[in-house]
Amino acid sequence: MSYLGVGITPGNVAVYHGGKMKLIDRRLRLTELLLRCSVTVFTLLALILVVTDTQVKHIFTIERRAKYTDMKALVFLVVANGIAAVYSLLHSVRCLVGSMKGSVLFSKPLAWAIFSGDQAMAYMCVAAIAAAAESGLIGREGEEKLQWMKLCNMYGKFCDWMSVGVAIALLASIAMVFVSCISAFSLFRLYGGATQRPPSLAVVK
Amino acid sequence: MSYLGVGITPGNVAVYHGGKMKLIDRRLRLTELLLRCSVTVFTLLALILVVTDTQVKHIFTIERRAKYTDMKALVFLVVANGIAAVYSLLHSVRCLVGSMKGSVLFSKPLAWAIFSGDQAMAYMCVAAIAAAAESGLIGREGEEKLQWMKLCNMYGKFCDWMSVGVAIALLASIAMVFVSCISAFSLFRLYGGATQRPPSLAVVK
Repeated sequence: MSYLGVGITPGNVAVYHGGKMKLIDRRLRLTELLLRCSVTVFTLLALILVVTDTQVKHIFTIERRAKYTDMKALVFLVVANGIAAVYSLLHSVRCLVGSMKGSVLFSKPLAWAIFSGDQAMAYMCVAAIAAAAESGLIGREGEEKLQWMKLCNMYGKFCDWMSVGVAIALLASIAMVFVSCISAFSLFRLYGGATQRPPSLAVVK
Repeated sequence: MSYLGVGITPGNVAVYHGGKMKLIDRRLRLTELLLRCSVTVFTLLALILVVTDTQVKHIFTIERRAKYTDMKALVFLVVANGIAAVYSLLHSVRCLVGSMKGSVLFSKPLAWAIFSGDQAMAYMCVAAIAAAAESGLIGREGEEKLQWMKLCNMYGKFCDWMSVGVAIALLASIAMVFVSCISAFSLFRLYGGATQRPPSLAVVK
C-alpha cells in the first residue's frame, strides 16, 4: 500500500492518508521501527554480555568463579531482557510489515493491546535496571553499615563487563520508554475526534 | 464553570462540552483527582514509615541502631517519595481547581509538560521501588554466594515495618502509573482530529 489515499488492509487495520498526516505517520512508523529494532539489539547484546561474563579467582586452594547467577538482580535483568528482546523482535516485524503496507493503526482493541504490552515492557525494563544498578552499587562500594563487603576490588574484570552490560540494558530501557510513548500516541489519538475544539471556539492563549 | 456548553477559562485552558464527552471528561477528571490524591497520601505515608522505622540491638556492650540511612536504596526511596508527594500535591490542587471550573485541557504545551512530568515521576517511583525491593530481598534472604548476610533475623521488627513502607510506596507507584496513562490520554487525544477515519470509510473488523 502506497500513499495514494484511502485503503483497507486485511484484519483490524484501516488506511487513510491526508497530506500532512501522511508525512507525520511515515516518520512515526519509521521512528517506532528504529526504536523497536534498537530495543531488540540492545537487550540481546546486554543479555549476552551479562550471561557470558565470568571471572575465576584462586583463593589459596579454593577456586571461586563469579557469574551473573550469584546475584538475584542480575538473573532478573537477564530474564527481563530476554522477554523484552522477543517482544521487541515480534513488534519490529509487525512494524516492518505495517511500514511496507503504509497502514495506520485504527483498531482500538489492537492499539490497547500494543499500548498495554509496551507499558508493561517499559516498566519491567526500568525495574530490572534499577534492581541491577542497586546490586551493582553494593558490589562496587559495599554497604559498610550492613557489613556487605564490596566485591569489585576482587572481581574487577567481571564488574567492568557487567557495568557495560547494564549500561546497554539501560539504553534498551530508554528506547522502550520512547516506544511506549509512541504507542500511547497511536492509541489515544483515536479518541481525539470528540474532544476537538469547534472551529468557532476562540481560545485564550 | 458548569456543564452548559462552551466556555473559556483564563490561561491556556479552553472549555467545550458535548453530551457524551461531558460525562467521560467528568469521570476522567474525578479519577485523575482521586489517583493524584492517593499518590500524595501513599507517598507521604511510605516516607513517614521508612524514615521513622528504627530498631536498636545490643551486641555485648555495643549498641547498634538500624535505620533507613544504612541502605542507599532506602535513601533513594525516601527522596523519590518526597519529590512524588510534593509533585502530586501540587497537581491534586490543579486538578481540584480544574474540576470545580469544569475545564478540559486543550493547550498542547501544558499537556506536554504534565505528561512529561507524570512519566518522569512514574518511572522514578518504579525504579525506587525496584531498588528498595532488591535491597530488602538481600536483607531478608541474604546473598549467600557473595557473603552478604541476611539481617532481618536480627532486626525483625525493623524489616517488617520497612516492608509495610515499601508496600505502600508500591501502591503509590501503581497509582502514579495510571496517572501517567491519563495524562498521556489528555495529551495525545489533542492530536486525534487529523487521524479520524472519514465516515465513508468502512473498516474490516
